[in-house]
Amino acid sequence: MLLNIIDHIGVFVFAVSGILSASEKRLDLFGGVVLAFITALGGGTLRDLLLNTEVAWMKADTLIYTVLLGAIAGLIFHRRFAQWRRTFFIFDTIGIAVYTTLGLQKALNFDHLPVVAVFLGVISATFGGVIRDVLCNEIPLIFRKEFYATACLAGGFLYVIAVQWLKMETTIAMISCIGMVVVLRILAVKLKWQMPVIK
Amino acid sequence: MLLNIIDHIGVFVFAVSGILSASEKRLDLFGGVVLAFITALGGGTLRDLLLNTEVAWMKADTLIYTVLLGAIAGLIFHRRFAQWRRTFFIFDTIGIAVYTTLGLQKALNFDHLPVVAVFLGVISATFGGVIRDVLCNEIPLIFRKEFYATACLAGGFLYVIAVQWLKMETTIAMISCIGMVVVLRILAVKLKWQMPVIK
Amino acid sequence: MLLNIIDHIGVFVFAVSGILSASEKRLDLFGGVVLAFITALGGGTLRDLLLNTEVAWMKADTLIYTVLLGAIAGLIFHRRFAQWRRTFFIFDTIGIAVYTTLGLQKALNFDHLPVVAVFLGVISATFGGVIRDVLCNEIPLIFRKEFYATACLAGGFLYVIAVQWLKMETTIAMISCIGMVVVLRILAVKLKWQMPVIK
Repeated sequence: MLLNIIDHIGVFVFAVSGILSASEKRLDLFGGVVLAFITALGGGTLRDLLLNTEVAWMKADTLIYTVLLGAIAGLIFHRRFAQWRRTFFIFDTIGIAVYTTLGLQKALNFDHLPVVAVFLGVISATFGGVIRDVLCNEIPLIFRKEFYATACLAGGFLYVIAVQWLKMETTIAMISCIGMVVVLRILAVKLKWQMPVIK
Repeated sequence: MLLNIIDHIGVFVFAVSGILSASEKRLDLFGGVVLAFITALGGGTLRDLLLNTEVAWMKADTLIYTVLLGAIAGLIFHRRFAQWRRTFFIFDTIGIAVYTTLGLQKALNFDHLPVVAVFLGVISATFGGVIRDVLCNEIPLIFRKEFYATACLAGGFLYVIAVQWLKMETTIAMISCIGMVVVLRILAVKLKWQMPVIK
Repeated sequence: MLLNIIDHIGVFVFAVSGILSASEKRLDLFGGVVLAFITALGGGTLRDLLLNTEVAWMKADTLIYTVLLGAIAGLIFHRRFAQWRRTFFIFDTIGIAVYTTLGLQKALNFDHLPVVAVFLGVISATFGGVIRDVLCNEIPLIFRKEFYATACLAGGFLYVIAVQWLKMETTIAMISCIGMVVVLRILAVKLKWQMPVIK
């Protein structure tokens, strides 16, 4: 399943980004690996706790090994990753787009309201980073600058409208949602879009 | 149901207060709305996770729309809310008193020990604010200065004593608990009560 | 049951350490007691939420009263505890070793993969302290300096290897795991072992 592969690539990229945050904060090896896990799997974990269901990575050790691979890659190659920023950004963006749709779809499977499902999709995609920032003693980046949570929200609502109102097929709605998130985020970076600061 | 209306007023007031915190920290619009949700619904969410049951707001979208209304009101009128501080304080106090009783009662319905039920009542009423402060990179206010968690504790124990020992009716016990929390908190503010600092 | 007694001693010691952190941060009495609870019971709570099962302390009020006793002892005797640092350290170390094995064993009872069980054992032993540090607005100590999470990991893997591969009896595996954690941590302190800092 293509989505499953992209999901794992997303986990890998998030794990690397956890290691990069850890190195900025001068954490030790243990802290770095924990941060890789939390960045990659924290959002999905919170989604599953809220759904009151089994936590996905606890039954799928391929996710755990993917985080470990990402952490090791991050530890060895972090200088190189800084150069590959653009490639990295693309995978990261596709990753959060996929997380959003998968989280949203999972919530719909549990018969949740569309608005709740969209929230759970966005939580899946973004709260790993939120918990990472809190553990690093920072106000979460997506509350201050990053546009990407808003891109996830927009993509999520597009999906819900497509499936619930326009009765489109799930696959097409998923592709639209992922496309929306990716396009909005790339535009946001190119055109330096930001949400307005309050006050 | 009167309690249900007060519950929604409490959610509204907490959402406004989330926006006010966000504006102090210069968060962006997205961060502010997330903070409104977490301040208003975070305590109840933690209570329901600990009870290993369905999270209340995920089945009741009126709570979600109330937060959105509170967030919008906070964004538009936050200067005015600063002037209405006294009215705001009354609703906030009644809100946490109601949260405490509802949380406590829910825990008792799940056959938990009275002392556990009181804790869950206090968690419902206060942990939204705790998570808000952690996300804003502050040591939680109620751990340093605010007396109101102690007022909730006292009200909670009064309720449990009234229902379990004195075999009073639930309604009367609820009113006593809410009255206790409100009176203690107003006295605390008027008389500048504070818990002693350790050491 | 010996393990149960050591579990309660561990909870007591962790509650005292919560009070000590609170006094460093000049929290008030309420904040200190909350911190005692979270330090002592937070790791086990997170483990039980991840296992999607009943939270242990909510059904066992002896744990709650042990935390209260530890908090009171910490409030009265905290100067003395500073002198008894060595005794304190031994109990703390045995405490986390026991938490690790109990958490791990509980996860295995829920039919989780060995690697997941080890993670849950380490989470039981260490995340109370992580949440304590986050609430005190600090980057968690075990992400920066402390070797003890690594000792728990090593003990946890020893247990899993002993039980799953070498088919040893549970009791012997538990003692080996506890011994491993205790010996590694004492060696780490004596020989000033630290995990390398990233970068």
